[in-house]
Order: sequence, then structure tokens, then C-alpha cells
Amino acid sequence: MAAETLVSLLAGEPCRFSAWVAMPEPLVAEASARAGFDCVTLDMQHGLHDPASVMRCIGAVALAGKPAVVRIPVGDFAMASRALDMGAAAVIAPMINSVADAHAFARAMKYPPIGERSWGPVRAMQLAGATDPVAYLRGANGQTLAFAMIETREAMALVDEILAVQGIDGIFVGPSDLSIALANGGSVDPLRADNVEAIGAILAAVKAAGKFAATYAITGAQARGYAALGFDLVAIGSDGGYLRAGASAMLAEAGAQ
Amino acid sequence: MAAETLVSLLAGEPCRFSAWVAMPEPLVAEASARAGFDCVTLDMQHGLHDPASVMRCIGAVALAGKPAVVRIPVGDFAMASRALDMGAAAVIAPMINSVADAHAFARAMKYPPIGERSWGPVRAMQLAGATDPVAYLRGANGQTLAFAMIETREAMALVDEILAVQGIDGIFVGPSDLSIALANGGSVDPLRADNVEAIGAILAAVKAAGKFAATYAITGAQARGYAALGFDLVAIGSDGGYLRAGASAMLAEAGAQ
Amino acid sequence: MAAETLVSLLAGEPCRFSAWVAMPEPLVAEASARAGFDCVTLDMQHGLHDPASVMRCIGAVALAGKPAVVRIPVGDFAMASRALDMGAAAVIAPMINSVADAHAFARAMKYPPIGERSWGPVRAMQLAGATDPVAYLRGANGQTLAFAMIETREAMALVDEILAVQGIDGIFVGPSDLSIALANGGSVDPLRADNVEAIGAILAAVKAAGKFAATYAITGAQARGYAALGFDLVAIGSDGGYLRAGASAMLAEAGAQ
Amino acid sequence: MAAETLVSLLAGEPCRFSAWVAMPEPLVAEASARAGFDCVTLDMQHGLHDPASVMRCIGAVALAGKPAVVRIPVGDFAMASRALDMGAAAVIAPMINSVADAHAFARAMKYPPIGERSWGPVRAMQLAGATDPVAYLRGANGQTLAFAMIETREAMALVDEILAVQGIDGIFVGPSDLSIALANGGSVDPLRADNVEAIGAILAAVKAAGKFAATYAITGAQARGYAALGFDLVAIGSDGGYLRAGASAMLAEAGAQ
Amino acid sequence: MAAETLVSLLAGEPCRFSAWVAMPEPLVAEASARAGFDCVTLDMQHGLHDPASVMRCIGAVALAGKPAVVRIPVGDFAMASRALDMGAAAVIAPMINSVADAHAFARAMKYPPIGERSWGPVRAMQLAGATDPVAYLRGANGQTLAFAMIETREAMALVDEILAVQGIDGIFVGPSDLSIALANGGSVDPLRADNVEAIGAILAAVKAAGKFAATYAITGAQARGYAALGFDLVAIGSDGGYLRAGASAMLAEAGAQ
Amino acid sequence: MAAETLVSLLAGEPCRFSAWVAMPEPLVAEASARAGFDCVTLDMQHGLHDPASVMRCIGAVALAGKPAVVRIPVGDFAMASRALDMGAAAVIAPMINSVADAHAFARAMKYPPIGERSWGPVRAMQLAGATDPVAYLRGANGQTLAFAMIETREAMALVDEILAVQGIDGIFVGPSDLSIALANGGSVDPLRADNVEAIGAILAAVKAAGKFAATYAITGAQARGYAALGFDLVAIGSDGGYLRAGASAMLAEAGAQ
Ligand SMILES: [Mg+2]
Ligand SMILES: [Mg+2]
Ligand SMILES: [Mg+2]
Ligand SMILES: [Mg+2]
Ligand SMILES: [Mg+2]
Ligand SMILES: [Mg+2]
Repeated sequence: MAAETLVSLLAGEPCRFSAWVAMPEPLVAEASARAGFDCVTLDMQHGLHDPASVMRCIGAVALAGKPAVVRIPVGDFAMASRALDMGAAAVIAPMINSVADAHAFARAMKYPPIGERSWGPVRAMQLAGATDPVAYLRGANGQTLAFAMIETREAMALVDEILAVQGIDGIFVGPSDLSIALANGGSVDPLRADNVEAIGAILAAVKAAGKFAATYAITGAQARGYAALGFDLVAIGSDGGYLRAGASAMLAEAGAQ
Repeated sequence: MAAETLVSLLAGEPCRFSAWVAMPEPLVAEASARAGFDCVTLDMQHGLHDPASVMRCIGAVALAGKPAVVRIPVGDFAMASRALDMGAAAVIAPMINSVADAHAFARAMKYPPIGERSWGPVRAMQLAGATDPVAYLRGANGQTLAFAMIETREAMALVDEILAVQGIDGIFVGPSDLSIALANGGSVDPLRADNVEAIGAILAAVKAAGKFAATYAITGAQARGYAALGFDLVAIGSDGGYLRAGASAMLAEAGAQ
Repeated sequence: MAAETLVSLLAGEPCRFSAWVAMPEPLVAEASARAGFDCVTLDMQHGLHDPASVMRCIGAVALAGKPAVVRIPVGDFAMASRALDMGAAAVIAPMINSVADAHAFARAMKYPPIGERSWGPVRAMQLAGATDPVAYLRGANGQTLAFAMIETREAMALVDEILAVQGIDGIFVGPSDLSIALANGGSVDPLRADNVEAIGAILAAVKAAGKFAATYAITGAQARGYAALGFDLVAIGSDGGYLRAGASAMLAEAGAQ
Repeated sequence: MAAETLVSLLAGEPCRFSAWVAMPEPLVAEASARAGFDCVTLDMQHGLHDPASVMRCIGAVALAGKPAVVRIPVGDFAMASRALDMGAAAVIAPMINSVADAHAFARAMKYPPIGERSWGPVRAMQLAGATDPVAYLRGANGQTLAFAMIETREAMALVDEILAVQGIDGIFVGPSDLSIALANGGSVDPLRADNVEAIGAILAAVKAAGKFAATYAITGAQARGYAALGFDLVAIGSDGGYLRAGASAMLAEAGAQ
Repeated sequence: MAAETLVSLLAGEPCRFSAWVAMPEPLVAEASARAGFDCVTLDMQHGLHDPASVMRCIGAVALAGKPAVVRIPVGDFAMASRALDMGAAAVIAPMINSVADAHAFARAMKYPPIGERSWGPVRAMQLAGATDPVAYLRGANGQTLAFAMIETREAMALVDEILAVQGIDGIFVGPSDLSIALANGGSVDPLRADNVEAIGAILAAVKAAGKFAATYAITGAQARGYAALGFDLVAIGSDGGYLRAGASAMLAEAGAQ
Repeated sequence: MAAETLVSLLAGEPCRFSAWVAMPEPLVAEASARAGFDCVTLDMQHGLHDPASVMRCIGAVALAGKPAVVRIPVGDFAMASRALDMGAAAVIAPMINSVADAHAFARAMKYPPIGERSWGPVRAMQLAGATDPVAYLRGANGQTLAFAMIETREAMALVDEILAVQGIDGIFVGPSDLSIALANGGSVDPLRADNVEAIGAILAAVKAAGKFAATYAITGAQARGYAALGFDLVAIGSDGGYLRAGASAMLAEAGAQ
């Protein structure tokens, strides 16, 4: 249904923006897709999604003609394969803190010989309008993207090794967790100077490796900054945040006290 | 759970504002309640609510400490009673086009001797923290509000008679349908001069009758206008609209093209 | 699945007892069915059921080998037909306050020539293990029961006429609403002397007409009393009440303060 | 999303076929839409749909690029309006047994000045990709179809009068109920000679009135027959029947005993 | 509820056939169970099931009197235990590629001393009509079956060792993944000669070990072939496939173009 | 919403009692919370909860003003973090059989520097009325409790080492599994003498370590016994058990045979 695939969107200019959806409701995912974002990310880690809502919401996002991205729970690589079977265009895996984590993620995301993704893309083929299994098998590894999250000191130290893992298509920087890690748990502040510097270093490594760089911005202004730095994809805010911001603006306009 | 009841909110100054929720998802209703509105209206007529979602969403609004209002489908007065049993603080009935309609609505909303509401408020008492059935029976007619929608030429002509029906606590003007009616189906435009004039006439009648006046505004600016006219309660926009407005603002801030 | 049909259960001695289920959850309905009741009533009027939950819960009750009864919202006779199509063994219609109400209810409950129930019992036949449409058509009017609720002064005055309506199989007395009606809205008390007397008079009329007499008891002791009076079916308490009573007993046993 | 609207499909040759879906599951509706039917009918009368499932399933059918039709419960004309607001391309109303029934149905289906459909097509416009409210208002009466079911002796006698009601776009013949009515409740058999003759007479009346003729066929062979007679739209079988037929064929092929 | 247990079905002749259900809808699972299959498999790996739908669907399959089988996601052995607690008669674990995988699966499936399944079979006992905990504890290891999937080169090389693991009751061959593995990712074709040969070798090993042999067939004809080879259980097609096949046959019969 | 936090409840006298909820229905969780328990435990291991129901039920328990506890599936530590993000006051992890298990559990439960819990407590902060992220970050490790289950011989042998793991706040003894382990699979009986002795030894170790001791009681009488022994928190029975007990008592009172 999607007019343009996520891969082709990210391959070009300019920076693309993703909605960030925590509520497990297809109408919310669909409304987010229709609101002007390039794609919609469904969050299973800190958001309220589960496999059932992910499946329903990928369909709802497809109805709005946009690709869907899924962030899985920590270490649930079986879910990475399932998200692809459900029609996700990309998967974000949090807390990839070792090369072994990266390999496990890549194995779940890619068909042989790169990985060990198991065969069964009935729903994904249906949503993509694909009918030839062998063509799908041969194309899937290039069309569905694996984003490894870098958000700890250990991961930062291994960023080049993680980027070198075949099947990892890009890095998704986690600014909040990274800021906690750099502060040894003392604070959370994505905009702290040391954190901004670390994000820049990771971005440089990703660019050097020729892979996709993505991250998360709490506000539109932050997103503009990440885009200016050269990120390919930036997720912004959250569904609850969009709703609250829009409601607040209307209430202010109404003169509510 | 609600710190203040809807009746006490409306009895005072200033104009109160309601969220308008079409999506049948408790988290959306709860987020709308937390966004600064005085209450939350769940729309079963043109929105996507059904009895199950209304029940779940009233609980979610209560969790946020706000009263919930339910707009029922046209003529479904059994649902008016059920909404009260589910804990709604008020019910809006669309298309009250005759005195008979108003009587039927009032009968469903009020316990004897005013009406014929049937006994069974287990959930409503639970949410209200009420434990004495007889006290609830005697207080309910005064604590739960019946809003009759005036939105056709027939209804306008009968507004005083409808206001005179015992058990009708207020009028909810439907600006869009009224504008279609006045244009004989030719256009929909709540801000058209004849429509604005008609709304003013209805408002005057409600004030003269000493009952509550409520209406619906598409934008915050319209809501401010209705408040200035003297409406007691104005519903604004919709959940989908809040989300879209907030997302658009963030995307603009991000520099999305 | 049901070892014995509701009709055969009610035709014999002794008084039968129904669970009363307000929560729209199949596991609750199934647990109630397994707890020793003869059948399970799903309440759409004051309970939290809707068509979807009724359909799911009838299946859950069938899994436990018991017949299901559905109380519909006031005046929603289309739902009476649908409940039968979903496999209900009986339907209780609240607020049958006129002979016209009784006729409308009977029409929805019975196939021609008695009524105008429309054809489409796919689910009901499946749950009953029936495979011959003509046999089902000819047997259904006798196997599915229509209970008209008598719970107002008007209804009491018409009880013989309502009992005379072809297709009405029994009366379900509503003690709480009746007590409110007799007190003109001043109190609710099923055990008040005038109410007890009125219930007795209705029961006598039902017995004289040779139809089934059913009612609702808040406690087991009340149910024992109704059984002793000669009622054929008595619904007791509610799912929430069973849970609270069982929990309280365990907490007391535990020594909770 | 639909490549072709239902109106344009029915305006042309040949006879169109609708899936008939009783299960309230979007994936079933979507699978039925993808299986080759021209449109998908969601049945609320004898099927297991409710407002929530209708809303979800209309989206699922749209995702497969097909128009959705909704059969409402008997007399629930408020649901007719709501189905249109949810994006249905047509509504089938069962048991239209009087001219008053036909008028009530038409009023709910058409905007003024033909009817009294109330304004609020947010979801319908979204699914249709429509953005101009006035254009939608002016076009809707011509784009969404009202099918009145003729399935009793009374209705047959009034077929010309019902066809003459402005806002009724077509007739949907109910063969099973008609056969019961003609047999005075003694049997159900759509293929009985008197029933076939009656269906032919109704079809002739519809053709003479220049409106759409639709009906329901239990089997493909029956559907072929109705198409040959000149029906514009024929619904076939049911989702459960498709599944059973396909499973049986596979089991037979497998040699299951 | 099941007239015959899965163990007794598989112990005898002839080959048994399982439905394969991907849609997370109890009515679909129940309809599949009623369509003539010996049991119903609910697929969590490539199908759209999650724990909630598995629980609901096991009840629905029980209502139809059949045993349910669950295929869990890759490596989710905690779900294997939960599926048994929910009443599954067997669990299929995909991608058992090492002896350690087999041991982990067996540990989750069997109570001590064979494994480490944790105690809590309330729902399973309820569905089985079991009331004696100690009897259930002692019988469960023999009544619930663990099927390890062999579908990679590594697994093939270890088939005898995997079969030797105590608690593994049988092998479920995965023909599609095996064909991808043998082609090093170049194609998917279960009927390719090398794949057919490999399946035969695995089957021989299972027979030699005296355990159950199961597999998956895309078509009825393939299933007949596997049955002729000596497999004890063959799953066929999918719910979506049954529906599509049945619909296509009816549309062809109708003369749809 | 909770008047008192779980930590403050457990810090004081007397022993606290938790409801045990297996049914994935918010109304059941809410009813259990209102029935007099100090908190409500939602069971994902042997109960029928999944992430979606846990999220909904935590809200329902909060609506009743009580803290919620979640028991996760075996080894699903990602779910431990998610339960905290959903607003759980404590998490119980079954089958902590090694120090490595305890460390993995603690890492998921605690923010740095104690653990590696990832940042994203939007829902938890909302339910707690918290608005300052840094304050939440610094307070969370002390306000949300990690209970490790000791229920095997291996775990018993390691109880002091497990108690010494930073981030483990208490032990939850699993009496049934422990009794199976001690009997090498031969029986299940929490009240067996060797089991009672083992429970006493574990309790002594917990007390010596100054951490919280919790366990599960099948009956109120058992719970009283555990409280007398010195346990800080005892979960009692189950939702299905409360319902059955309450229903049985009412049926007995009614004279049901
Ligand atoms: Mg993070
Ligand atoms: Mg209106
Ligand atoms: Mg009553
Ligand atoms: Mg019909
Ligand atoms: Mg496989
Ligand atoms: Mg245990």
C-alpha cells in the first residue's frame, strides 16, 4: 500500500521524520500516519504495544499509505522476526550492548545466508502486494531494515564492531539512556554537553560505515537539530504528546483558565 | 474520584470546556482528560464509541479525576440509562426534534417520579464512592444531567416547549446540523450569519428557562466566542484533531517538508 | 453442549438458580457457570454487556455445559432476536409495561406464525449441535423462552393481559424497580411489605396462567424465600458480588484488619 | 482507497458478488475482500458484528481496496447513519415491512433535503480521501446506497410503494425469510417454487422502478441463477462457509477419513 | 471436552490432520475445529497469535471437542509452559538447532523429575475436567506432547541426539525453512528433490527412535503424500487459505469474472 | 492514585495481603482491589495475563486506589522493566534458580548504577502523578520492588547469595513448586512437613538479610499461618477462587441442591 518504501525514503534527501506511537490503538497509529510523518514507529519497549497491537497497527499505518517501524522489547529477537512477518519495514532493537547482541539481532532479521530468519511472511507479502515467494525471499533482506540501538557506554565503545556486523543496516541512538549512562545514573538529560558530544561521535561512526543513522527527539526543535547534524531518520515526541500539545493549544485559544 | 462534580462545575463561573473523544480507546480518553479539559465527552453518534468502549473510557476518565459525558446515538434512550449506570455525569441526546423526543429522553434519564429510569447503578455508585442505595436514588436526578440537542428547524421552533420538559437539564446546540437545516441541505457552515443568529436565539431561550447551555466548537477561537456569548459548557474539536494539530506543530518545528 | 436444556430444567422440580453476570468477560461467565448454578444470565441492561460480549460469553457458558440467558436493554427487541441467534436459551426483556410491549417482544422471539423472528440461527444451531434447518425452525419457538419483566404499576395492572400474549413464556419480576414504583421514587427496598405482597400477587397470576415465574434475589436467603414461594427460576446476586463475598471470607480467615 | 466505488460497480455490467461476513474479525473481512469478491457485507442482524467490529472491518476492507456494505439489526436506523459515518458504501435494512419503515430508513441514510442524516462523516471522509465538507455533503446522498429488505408478505404487497420512497436506492430480497413467510412458518426453503416466483415478481418491480436489485444466495450455483435473472448484486454464502468448504476440500484431497 | 486425547489419536492409525490457524480469533479456531480436522494448531511464530489469543482459542477449540496445539515463537520456552497451563495438548517449538535447545524445550514442557515445568495448571485442569492435582501432576508429562522442529542443516545433523533427549515426544519437520537452508538462502521449495530426501531421512530417524513424526503441508495433495510416507500428524494449509479456497470455488461456481 | 505506596505498606506492621488475579480483565482486577486486599498481583506465569491486560489492569487497580504487582513469565526480564513502565509497584520473577538469574532480574528492575533499566516511564509517572523526570529517576529504585521466587532445591541452596544481590528487594517463596521439587516430582503439597520446614528456613534467611519476605497461600487459613510466621506479604487464592467461593456460599444459602 505504501507509495514509497522506507529504504527508498531513507536513501534520499532530506532527513525523514517518524511518528512515535505508544498507545496500542490502530486509530491512533493511523491518525499519526496521516498527520504528515514519513513513517510510524510502534514502541513495544517503553510504549504499551504488544504483538497483537503491533499487527493491527501495521495494517492501520498501511491503510494510510505509510511504512511502519517496530521497536521490540530488550532482547526479544523472536519478536523482530515476527514484526517483519507482520509487515514492518524496519525493526529497532534496544540495548545492543555487545557484538553478540548485534549478531543475534541480525540473525533474526535476515534470511539465510546472512541470518536465520525463518520462513512465513504471509501477512507481510499480503500487505506489500507480493505474490512470488522466491522473489520475496531474495528481496527481503534488502528491503527490511535492522536498527541497533546504541545507548550505553559499552555499546559506544563497540560502535564500529556493531556497525561491522552483516545484517545491521543502521544505528538508532538512544539519547536518554545514553545520558543516564554517562551520568552513572545521576540524571537524565539528552541535551547535556557530554551527551551531545557522544551522539556526534556515534553519528560520525555510522556515516563512516555508510549505514543509516537514526535517533529520537523529544521536541520538534531537537529533531531539527538532529536533522541538521545529518541523521537520516528522527522520531519525534509521542502520540500522547501530540494529543496533549494540540489540546493545550486549543484550550489556550479558547481562553481556558 | 472526580474532585468536583459536573453539576458544581457548571453551576459556577466561568464557561467550562469539554474534550470530544471519537476514538474508542481508554488511553485516548484518559489523555484527553489529563490535557486540561474540565470534562470529557465520548461520542457514540458520529464518533466510534460503542457501549463497551464507553464503559471502559468512563473508568479511564475517572482515573484522571474528571467527569465523563456521553453522546448517545439518535433515539437510543435505553443507552442514556446505561451510560448513567456506567458512571456518566451527563448524557447528550442528538436530534431532539419534538416534545415527545424530549419526554422519552427525560424518562430514561430520571428515576421516578420524574422519569422511569430503571434501578441498577452498581458501577456508577462504585465510581462515585457511593454506598447507600437510597441516598443515591434520591440524589441521582439532580447529579446527572440530560442535554437535549437542538439542531433542526423543528427543534428550534419547539425550544421553549422542550426546555419546559421536566428532567431536561439543558440544551446542547448542534451548530453543523443546524446550518445544514437552515440551508436546506445546501451547505454546512456553523459560522454562517443565519446560523449564528439562530444559535443566539436558542441560547437566549435556554437562559430564560434557567437551564444549562452547551454547544460544540470546531476550533479554540470558536469556543472562546461561545464562552463569551454565555454558554456554560463548550466541547472543542476532537481527539483526532488534537493529535493532528500537535503533530503538525512538531513537524513544522522540526522543519519537515 | 448443555446436558439439559433450560426448558427441561424449568419444567421439573425444584426451583432453579441462575448466576447473574455483569462483567463482559467470558472467563467470568464460564467461572460462574462452573460454580454450581443451573444457568447463567448475562445482563445488558444494568450490567456491562454488549452484543460482542454476549456472543463470546454464551460460548463460554456452553463450554461449561450450561444454558445462557440474556437480559436485553429496555425496548431493544432486535437484540432479543440476535441473542437467540447467538445461542441464548432465554431472553429477559425489562420494562414490559404494556400489552404492545409484550407483543413486540414476542414477535422478536418467535418464528412465524407466532411472531416475526427472522431466519439466521447459524451460531445457535452450531452450539446446539443442530444440523437440520427445518427441524430447528419448527422446534425453536418451544425451546427458547421469552421472559417479560413486570416491574411497574402499569405492568402489574396488566399482568394477566401480558401473560395472555402468545409467545410470552414467563414473567420475570423486577423487585427493585417495583419497590421504587410502589414508593413513587421515594425508596428502593425489595423486602418492603407492600412489595413482597405485590410480588406474591404477580406470582399467583403467572401460576394461574401456567407459565414460568422468575425473579431476582440480592442474597441467597432471599433466593431461598422466592424458591419457597414457588418461583421456577431465581437469579442471585452478581459476579462482582460473588467475588467480593469470596474475597472477604478469605481475608477474614486470614486475619486481615 | 477503493479503486472503484460501489455505485459505479453496480451501475455497470455484469452482476456483482459480495462476500458475506458474520465473524467480527478484521482479518476475516480483509481476507474475504482479497478472495475475489466485488465488495464485502458485514452482517449485524444474524451475523456476530457490533458497531465496534463494523468500524474495524470497514477499515480492513478498505485496506484491501474494496467497498464495504453493512446489514444493520432490525429497525436500528441510527446504526444506518453510523455505518455511513464509519465509511460504509451501502446499508441493508432488514424487515422493511411498511412504507413508514422505508421512510425511516431513508431519513437516516440521506442528508437534507431528502432525509435527516446528521452531520459528522469524519471517518468516512478520511477513508474516502475526501477533504471538502461541502462537496462531501452534496455528493454523499448519491454515493451511499440504501437497500431495503423485502422478505415478508406485507413487504411484497407494498414493494412498489417502498420503491417509490425517495432515498431508497434498491431492494435486497431475503429469500429465506420470504420462504418462511410464504409457508406460514412451516418450512424454510429459498428454492421452493412459490418463493422463486415471488422473488421474480419483486425483481420485476425493482427493474421497473429503475433501482438496484440485490439478494442473497446460499451457494455459488444459486448466485449464478440470480445473476442470470438480472440481479445487480448477489451476496454468497458466509465466511464460515468459505472456510469450511476450503478445509473440506483440502481434507478430502489429503485422504482424511 | 475432547472426546479423544491427542496422545491416543496419534498412537493409533491412520495419519491425523491438523488445521493451521494464523488469525487470532476464537471463531476462526472453532470453525477450523468443526471443519473435520483432528486437532487445531495455533501459530505464534509466523501466525498472528499472542498469549491472549492462544488462551481464547484453546477454549474455542475445546468447545468444538478437539485438542489444540500451539507453535511458540523461536526460543520462547516460557510460553511453552504457559500454553500447557492454558490447556494445549501439544507444543511445537521452532528452530531446535542444538541439543541445548532441545533440553531447554523439554525442561519447560515436563514436570520434575524430567523437567522443570512450574506448577499452576488451573485452566488446563478445568478444560480437561481434572480435579485431583496429584493425579494431574503425575499424568501430565505423558499427556502433553513436545514437538521439536527440525528445519536447518545443524538440526538435521543432530536429529538422533535431539530425539534422544528425554521429554522430547516427537519431531515436527519444517519443510520450507529446510529447503531454504539446503539452498543456502537461494530458494524456498519444499518439494525440491534434495528437500524431499532430507525429510525422508529425518522421518526414518524419528521412526527408529519410536517417537512421533509430524510436518506441515501446503496442500491436501502434499498432506496425502506425507501421510503415505508414514507421518503421524500433518498440518495442512492455513485458515486464510481455507477461506480463500472456499470463496474462490463459490465465485467460480457463480460465474464471477 | 494509591493513598499509600507498597513500600510504605510493607515497611510497617502488620502482614499485608495481596489479591491474586489470573483473569485478564480490568473489572476483575478492580473488583479484587476493592474487596479489601492491600494490593493486587497480576499473574503472567500461570495466570492468563499478557502485556496488554497487565497495562489495562494496573490502571484499574490504580482507579481503586491500590498498588499493583506483576508476576512475569519465567526468565522474561524485559517484561519486568515493562511492568514498571506500566506502573507496577513490584515485580515477582519466578524460578530464580541461580545468582545469574538474580542479577539479570535486578538489572532489569533498577536504573543505573545498580542496574540497566532503560528510561521511558511515561505511563508510570502519569499514574503516580510524577512530573519531574530526574526526581523519578532517583526515586524509582527505592520505590519499586524486585521479588525473586525461591521454589527449587538449587534456589534454596543459594538463598543467601541471591539475597545478597543488589537490587533484589525480597524473596517470594513458591510453596507448590518447592513441594514438587522436594518430592522429586512425586507430589504437590505445600503443607507437607518437609516443605513447611524449608519455607521456614528461607524465611529466616530473608529476615536475616533484612529484606522483604512474601509468599502465596491457597486459603485464608494458610495465609494466617504465614502471617504469624512473619511474612511481610501473603497473596491469597485467586480471582476464580473468590468467585467460586462466594457463589457457592450464596447457592448454599439459597438451598440449591
Ligand atoms: Mg532507551
Ligand atoms: Mg448533530
Ligand atoms: Mg429492573
Ligand atoms: Mg432475513
Ligand atoms: Mg519454519
Ligand atoms: Mg511456582
